[in-house]
Amino acid sequence: MVKQVRAAFTRQALVRAAAEVFADNGYARASLPAISRRAGVSAGALHFHFPSKDELAGEVERAATHAVTEMTRHCRRTRGSALSALIAATHQLVGAFAADPVTWAGFRLSGDPAWRDRAGLLDWWHTWVHDMLRQARDEGELTDGVSTEGAAAAVVAATVGFEVLGSRDREWLSTERMTQFWTFLLPSLAGAPEEDLTRMLSYGMAEAART
Amino acid sequence: MVKQVRAAFTRQALVRAAAEVFADNGYARASLPAISRRAGVSAGALHFHFPSKDELAGEVERAATHAVTEMTRHCRRTRGSALSALIAATHQLVGAFAADPVTWAGFRLSGDPAWRDRAGLLDWWHTWVHDMLRQARDEGELTDGVSTEGAAAAVVAATVGFEVLGSRDREWLSTERMTQFWTFLLPSLAGAPEEDLTRMLSYGMAEAART
Repeated sequence: MVKQVRAAFTRQALVRAAAEVFADNGYARASLPAISRRAGVSAGALHFHFPSKDELAGEVERAATHAVTEMTRHCRRTRGSALSALIAATHQLVGAFAADPVTWAGFRLSGDPAWRDRAGLLDWWHTWVHDMLRQARDEGELTDGVSTEGAAAAVVAATVGFEVLGSRDREWLSTERMTQFWTFLLPSLAGAPEEDLTRMLSYGMAEAART
Repeated sequence: MVKQVRAAFTRQALVRAAAEVFADNGYARASLPAISRRAGVSAGALHFHFPSKDELAGEVERAATHAVTEMTRHCRRTRGSALSALIAATHQLVGAFAADPVTWAGFRLSGDPAWRDRAGLLDWWHTWVHDMLRQARDEGELTDGVSTEGAAAAVVAATVGFEVLGSRDREWLSTERMTQFWTFLLPSLAGAPEEDLTRMLSYGMAEAART
């Protein structure tokens, strides 16, 4: 039993170390020795848990997908509306890029041309964003005639852009920057009176500050 | 003289082949043999022109920076207003991602964590976008109180996102998608009456169709 616990810890340390090395160097340049060194684990132990870099990357993306789906589920459950859930989720996603190397690396891997076996976290995120916007439309939150597809594209492009730019300058992962983005987007999306829009924006900020 | 012309052609073929290989595989995974093969040039000739992959990547980014600065200068000169110039430039930039591997690879390299010697095309683009928005404000095109910094961040994040997503699905580099993005952003930026906004958007589209 102790052995199993230790194995689980080692596995977790390897996934985290791999995520850090992928985030710093990109998938292609990341080396297994650098990962085992960073995890404080022998090359043999690494090989025992993950026979190849591809399998490590797969595990990073799976862990990131799990974290992101849990996070979005939480947002949907605790928010009063689909649009508020979407705004809160974008804040939490960039917050996770800053705080959790596994989520960051998994999201990045899912858009990396050098990583061919991706499971599609980016596609999953796009589908979820679009789904929230359709729910917002069905709940009467959106201005008539707004293209949910176009709005989803704008939100997904921005989150991907924030991720790439955040790898060079952490300022891009701040709550303020995401709030500014929504300040520009929201009036075109939602027909709500200005005080409701302001409340939606501040919801996102309060949530991000809590996490 | 003939020799010089031939050398210039070879150099250009190498830069283009390198751009295609970088765009397909990322900087780190791109190999010099793959580049010389694609250019139809011997390994010796490649080495003669570019002693290292770093020097090739530097040349790709320089060529891309030249193309992008020329393009933005053209937009600024031929457009009636700073905001129209900005909209046209975003269309031309994603159009260039689709049509010109050198511009695409150079832009991508400038945000690639594996490429350390970058000259900063991405930073240059951010500065230009912000500058256009400040000029638009000074020319009275923007709604009072709009943050030019926040708007620049939204535009830059979106162009970076479109670039990354476009490497997986060309649809992201279409005029329609960029127009949709501006449809959401523009009403929050500009105080112009709706018909002026529509004209600005269609300007961008007509220009993109021409190039």
